[in-house]
Amino acid sequence: MSVDTLKTVASTLVDYCRTGQEAKGLSELYALDATSTEAGPGPDGGDPLSNGVDAIRGKHAWWAENFEVHSITVDGPYLHGDKSFAVIFEIDATHTASGQRQAMKEVALYTLNDAGKIIAEAFFMSAG
Amino acid sequence: MSVDTLKTVASTLVDYCRTGQEAKGLSELYALDATSTEAGPGPDGGDPLSNGVDAIRGKHAWWAENFEVHSITVDGPYLHGDKSFAVIFEIDATHTASGQRQAMKEVALYTLNDAGKIIAEAFFMSAG
Repeated sequence: MSVDTLKTVASTLVDYCRTGQEAKGLSELYALDATSTEAGPGPDGGDPLSNGVDAIRGKHAWWAENFEVHSITVDGPYLHGDKSFAVIFEIDATHTASGQRQAMKEVALYTLNDAGKIIAEAFFMSAG
Repeated sequence: MSVDTLKTVASTLVDYCRTGQEAKGLSELYALDATSTEAGPGPDGGDPLSNGVDAIRGKHAWWAENFEVHSITVDGPYLHGDKSFAVIFEIDATHTASGQRQAMKEVALYTLNDAGKIIAEAFFMSAG
């Protein structure tokens, strides 16, 4: 691992998020046993932890089925050391079932393993 | 520890940073053995790690002596679980010795210990 690896992974992930290629990012950049942790439990008390890249794919699919995205802004990456980076997301989306439109801003924190793959992502939400 | 404690500590820290009361934050909200880690080594190869709240005070003093701050924007807090939060800082400052003015944006990640004190802060910088 090196800072160059971190820069490459981080900027590639950001590029994929900007161009709607998140699925490619999951396949190329994530470890199979990567975890994803939401800021807190879901409205239904759901577990904030998704365990494994397939579970993260499931979360992406759920999102795509339930929300219409009007715009997304991806600010970053912001680097720390040689194994972590942060990205700031601003998303304007409508929950299709309820018709409720919401502007969300969140900080995502990514951690790489020794092989240079993303092993964890964690989301930070405004206290509201 | 609870989410309420996290919310209180996080919003108090943000208020102090907005009103120039960082020193009060260090005294009230930080554990004595708190660490602070910069995004990377300094321009002189300096250790990114400051160990203990007194070392963090020293870093603040160094900053105050060497930079003139024109404006600071503090966006947050963004919460995750019950022990961590992030804050986005935008700082417009001039390095007084060189006269060089720079606009900096960084993400700061804070971690609380079981007693509800900040035990670690870590800074994430734009790849540049």
